[in-house]
Amino acid sequence: MEFDTIAAISTPIGEGAIAIVRLSGDEAINIADNIYQGIGGKCLKDVASHTIHYGKIVDPKTSEIVEEVMVTVMKGPKTFTREDVIEINCHGGLVSVNRVLQLVLRSGARLAEPGEFTKRAFLNGRIDLSQAEAVMDLIRAKTDKAMNVAIGQMEGRLSKLVQKLRQEILEVVAHVEVNIDYPEYDDVEEMTHRLLNEKASYIRNELQKLLETAHQGKILREGLSTAIIGRPNVGKSSLLNSLVHENKAIVTDIPGTTRDVIEEYVNVRGVPLRLIDTAGIRETEDIVERIGVERSKKYLKEADLILLVLNASEPLTPEDEALLETVAGFDVIVIANKMDLPQKIDLERVRQLVPKGKMITTSLLKDEGIDELEEAIATMYFEGQVEGADLTYVSNSRHIALISQALQSIEDVLEGVELGTPIDIIQIDLTRTWELLGEIIGDTVQESLLDQLFSQFCLGK
Amino acid sequence: MEFDTIAAISTPIGEGAIAIVRLSGDEAINIADNIYQGIGGKCLKDVASHTIHYGKIVDPKTSEIVEEVMVTVMKGPKTFTREDVIEINCHGGLVSVNRVLQLVLRSGARLAEPGEFTKRAFLNGRIDLSQAEAVMDLIRAKTDKAMNVAIGQMEGRLSKLVQKLRQEILEVVAHVEVNIDYPEYDDVEEMTHRLLNEKASYIRNELQKLLETAHQGKILREGLSTAIIGRPNVGKSSLLNSLVHENKAIVTDIPGTTRDVIEEYVNVRGVPLRLIDTAGIRETEDIVERIGVERSKKYLKEADLILLVLNASEPLTPEDEALLETVAGFDVIVIANKMDLPQKIDLERVRQLVPKGKMITTSLLKDEGIDELEEAIATMYFEGQVEGADLTYVSNSRHIALISQALQSIEDVLEGVELGTPIDIIQIDLTRTWELLGEIIGDTVQESLLDQLFSQFCLGK
Repeated sequence: MEFDTIAAISTPIGEGAIAIVRLSGDEAINIADNIYQGIGGKCLKDVASHTIHYGKIVDPKTSEIVEEVMVTVMKGPKTFTREDVIEINCHGGLVSVNRVLQLVLRSGARLAEPGEFTKRAFLNGRIDLSQAEAVMDLIRAKTDKAMNVAIGQMEGRLSKLVQKLRQEILEVVAHVEVNIDYPEYDDVEEMTHRLLNEKASYIRNELQKLLETAHQGKILREGLSTAIIGRPNVGKSSLLNSLVHENKAIVTDIPGTTRDVIEEYVNVRGVPLRLIDTAGIRETEDIVERIGVERSKKYLKEADLILLVLNASEPLTPEDEALLETVAGFDVIVIANKMDLPQKIDLERVRQLVPKGKMITTSLLKDEGIDELEEAIATMYFEGQVEGADLTYVSNSRHIALISQALQSIEDVLEGVELGTPIDIIQIDLTRTWELLGEIIGDTVQESLLDQLFSQFCLGK
Repeated sequence: MEFDTIAAISTPIGEGAIAIVRLSGDEAINIADNIYQGIGGKCLKDVASHTIHYGKIVDPKTSEIVEEVMVTVMKGPKTFTREDVIEINCHGGLVSVNRVLQLVLRSGARLAEPGEFTKRAFLNGRIDLSQAEAVMDLIRAKTDKAMNVAIGQMEGRLSKLVQKLRQEILEVVAHVEVNIDYPEYDDVEEMTHRLLNEKASYIRNELQKLLETAHQGKILREGLSTAIIGRPNVGKSSLLNSLVHENKAIVTDIPGTTRDVIEEYVNVRGVPLRLIDTAGIRETEDIVERIGVERSKKYLKEADLILLVLNASEPLTPEDEALLETVAGFDVIVIANKMDLPQKIDLERVRQLVPKGKMITTSLLKDEGIDELEEAIATMYFEGQVEGADLTYVSNSRHIALISQALQSIEDVLEGVELGTPIDIIQIDLTRTWELLGEIIGDTVQESLLDQLFSQFCLGK
């Protein structure tokens, strides 16, 4: 395929030692040569592929030196995009790397859209769609376990499984077609139904197994959004700080927004907890006071897990009881804190109000109970431990939706067989299953969907 | 010199397409080989210098694949540190790059201290101290002009000037010593005094010229810390938004701290304004209400520039008058906003209260007056325009302090000459000037100072 030459800053925005401006396309090397001043007048077009060169970036208009750089030249097809790729390693300041990018754009490159480098890798056939999506998952991974899932998917583990299932379906379709075209024997219909039943059952089971990993896969991929609630001064900030302190928070700026939307993750035994509104907790210690009752309820609905903190050294207040009633239907862990003081809380009453929730007693002041809490969280979602890298997880919502639809479609096949529906009708559902699975790896996917998918990537990837 | 092998993440922390783990030292290539799996079993120790190679990072303990990477091999001395350097380009996730770093450390590298790569470049003689400091300035540069200053310094512009002055001093010292050692002629003393007077005057003038650039240099390097104050609802948020909107804010996380300390810069005609407490303005619109009167005063003292916003459609309130009196001694621009409404403010009275401050009238609602404000800010510090790249600025506080001391010391020389002090006494001050200038380029600098200097760098540089 023929594309224009694209460019973007490929390192995170911020102060760092190195920042990279990446170019990809037929003109990448020429464009770089236009602003590059090598030692002794060396040109990048003359150097060997996969080599790196010291030099200066010079504004061709003003002859001003803009940066001191190392430039990597990689000629296609052995590159990330299969096109010619140039990487300009700058010293890392916001201003200087921006200026290098501006010069590159002025010299004929187009600013890459988010994910466009990876999209080219896909369009040029280097990776399939689920592998491309795994690249993004890898970048966003919040824990080791989540990373293993992404690496496995990037290596093509999910792709291979999907391809295997599609191959099986294709063989059945072929077999069925042969039987229909050569109806010499009168037991053809019966044989075909039996074969279909056997194969479709196998595929259904495989898809079901895959879907069973989806809930955990999604938690690993997206994090467990976790709300910490409770009356003022029961220890919400302490809980937050303990979790962050023990596990080292990962703070992420959500691209394209200001600091108002900063996400904070903590890694609790491999489970990434996305702590909701930690800024709110730190500032006012009272979410209800700050955002009002109605919005608080909405906010609780968005949470996958609620940590409700109570003061064990006081009797339950009507406010506590109201909170306990509100959260009864959710995944909740009740934390009876301040156990270092004489206990006045009625824990039996708490159990009655939240019969399905877990309960942990802590003294955050004395650092007691945090281990038990982490254990409880891990057990709640992964029965004690997060599975290792050997399982193929489905973690991406798009994949989960497609597999669910494929499962429905294969169940339609099985129902058809049972009801004795004519083979050519059943085959429609079979082909549909094949197509749906194809969308996972990008085999039967539309242009508009591709655009939308890759636009979720970060710039420069 | 012999050093151990160091490693660090050299790209900013965050989500991005590429993250780099950098190693430097004798063992860099061996350590990388320990965790690198190339195509066809290729080893990094066998490849040519300055080449880049595709491969996988594998945990040697578990044989688990951790990342898909491109590894650059650069053998000393033609590298940033003059040592063997390895750069492992990862896919860019926080978790995966951290894991690669962990593996590198487990394989025998030591985590680099902030600035340690640059420190090695200095200790191994590739760059001098002022050039090393310029590397950091380049990374932190907030505007093009600030970047030009840093680039000039990195290129050795300041170093060359300092070296030239030191050379001159050295020649005088030599000359003086010869005259002292060979006192055959009776006019030696006189000649020496005349020579000293002439040379010392020249050096004093050069140092004075350099110091004159210091104020502007410091503003370019560190930004002009700017406070926006005023009563509630006069338009502080609008002013902030206009400045940010017109100039695109640069938001910087201060390393080692949480989001509480995020700095926001806007580039006003080449002058980087560091806006103080913008979060406060956005949230409560009233700094006094939020942090109390005492702390507000402290906060005003920290500002280089105060933008005081008034509501021109209302008469001055006692609160306005109090604010105007408070800021009278500072660098202040008074902004009479809401000029789209009928004017009720007494601008003459404002001028009386702040006789030295500038005054601008605006209608932020109608986007009027922002240009005039920006013009006023630029004129206030750079007489209309920030000087181009051709001037050698001193921008670093350490350099400014050393040059001031050198200037004092050379003035002592001149005074000595005038008073007819014996040459060997004068020479002490002359030598001291030479030493002080030497500290700028790191020629006569102590180990402890070096440690402190480089510790201000970012990790991985």
